[in-house]
Amino acid sequence: MSALDQMNFPEEASEGRGEKRLSAVIRERRATPHFDSTPVPEEDLKRILAAGLEAPSGYNLQPWRFVVVRDPEHKKRLREAAMGQPKVEEASAVVVACGDTRAWKESDLERALKMGNEHGFPEAGNEGSRKAVHALLGGQAGTAAGINGEIGIWVNRHVMIAFTTMMWMAEALGYDTAPMEGFWEDKVRAALGIPEHVRVVALLAIGHRKGNDKLYGGRFDPKDVVFAERWG
Amino acid sequence: MSALDQMNFPEEASEGRGEKRLSAVIRERRATPHFDSTPVPEEDLKRILAAGLEAPSGYNLQPWRFVVVRDPEHKKRLREAAMGQPKVEEASAVVVACGDTRAWKESDLERALKMGNEHGFPEAGNEGSRKAVHALLGGQAGTAAGINGEIGIWVNRHVMIAFTTMMWMAEALGYDTAPMEGFWEDKVRAALGIPEHVRVVALLAIGHRKGNDKLYGGRFDPKDVVFAERWG
Repeated sequence: MSALDQMNFPEEASEGRGEKRLSAVIRERRATPHFDSTPVPEEDLKRILAAGLEAPSGYNLQPWRFVVVRDPEHKKRLREAAMGQPKVEEASAVVVACGDTRAWKESDLERALKMGNEHGFPEAGNEGSRKAVHALLGGQAGTAAGINGEIGIWVNRHVMIAFTTMMWMAEALGYDTAPMEGFWEDKVRAALGIPEHVRVVALLAIGHRKGNDKLYGGRFDPKDVVFAERWG
Repeated sequence: MSALDQMNFPEEASEGRGEKRLSAVIRERRATPHFDSTPVPEEDLKRILAAGLEAPSGYNLQPWRFVVVRDPEHKKRLREAAMGQPKVEEASAVVVACGDTRAWKESDLERALKMGNEHGFPEAGNEGSRKAVHALLGGQAGTAAGINGEIGIWVNRHVMIAFTTMMWMAEALGYDTAPMEGFWEDKVRAALGIPEHVRVVALLAIGHRKGNDKLYGGRFDPKDVVFAERWG
């Protein structure tokens, strides 16, 4: 997993399983409380990760970073940082989704611009993009206020686009998932060597369900959460 | 749109179009720079919104709120708050995705627990959930530090799960989308009557593309953003 050499999305998943419809997996998905030990084949795991990496981001800055934890010893340590939840050790893989608050400034803005130029975006637009990105993110860059405030929010927002995409792709391929927000960020950082300026956003456990899925808790009435034209 | 009376996901979209595979729409999606005036049928818009409302959330708190803007006068005002971007007026609908930082405390935690009990979760678990949610969110509730800090991050994270789900569902139904982060939050609040304690997270323009899609900007090499077992 030091490299994802497979960035294609074949029409069929491995073992001849078809890909489920998005509407069906949205209807059927439940948070998985327990996983059995059946591994997720590397090829499918790469498909899931690659799907997330294709997510959109502002100025194509892709502030997401993913640590894929599969080794039993690392899972054990991660479980402790995740409030002891058994599914961290049980699941075939746990994707620790992180957001880098500094990478845009240190390297990624220039990297994204260069890559964009190689893909046909005119170089004449680069200076405008630089100014816009600095106006958007520059104020709090690298400060604690930034990491815990607006830049923290910005990376969380972006990371969740890729994270959610991975969750639906895993479910479409027939796997069970558990999105997790129950963890001590500092302990996850310590367990996996994640730097201070990187936010740990969420964990995604992927594998095969053991026992019953969690019950469906229902959803609020759409009239209470969807408004026409104006708030309320 | 005062109510979403249609919460089912039929197998086929309206007009006999099939639903595209998630892997295909992930591969093909581009941010849409311009939309034509063809409307998105109400039924499909409800399918897209309903998909988002099925997204998972911690303790099922569903802190998302969505203002669906279709009226030309409202779109014009929203466009001004969105840095004048033409696609806000061009798109058939713009979903303004918001996160309510207070609703969990004022009503939604009790509402979610009651609904959970109606769906089979034992009432004996309610008190533990109450304590856990207050431990998670209670510290900064209602304060500016909370709205701009950790609770702001928490609602952003959750809203983006539903937001991303809507984006993929719209694309799977054959529509074009543009996720937008370029807006002045205070101006969007003022334009749509959104309260101060509510974060405006992102805008999703949905409709039919006019002209060419944006170029594909490429993605960073997976080896730079996906790590095995430990950071880096």
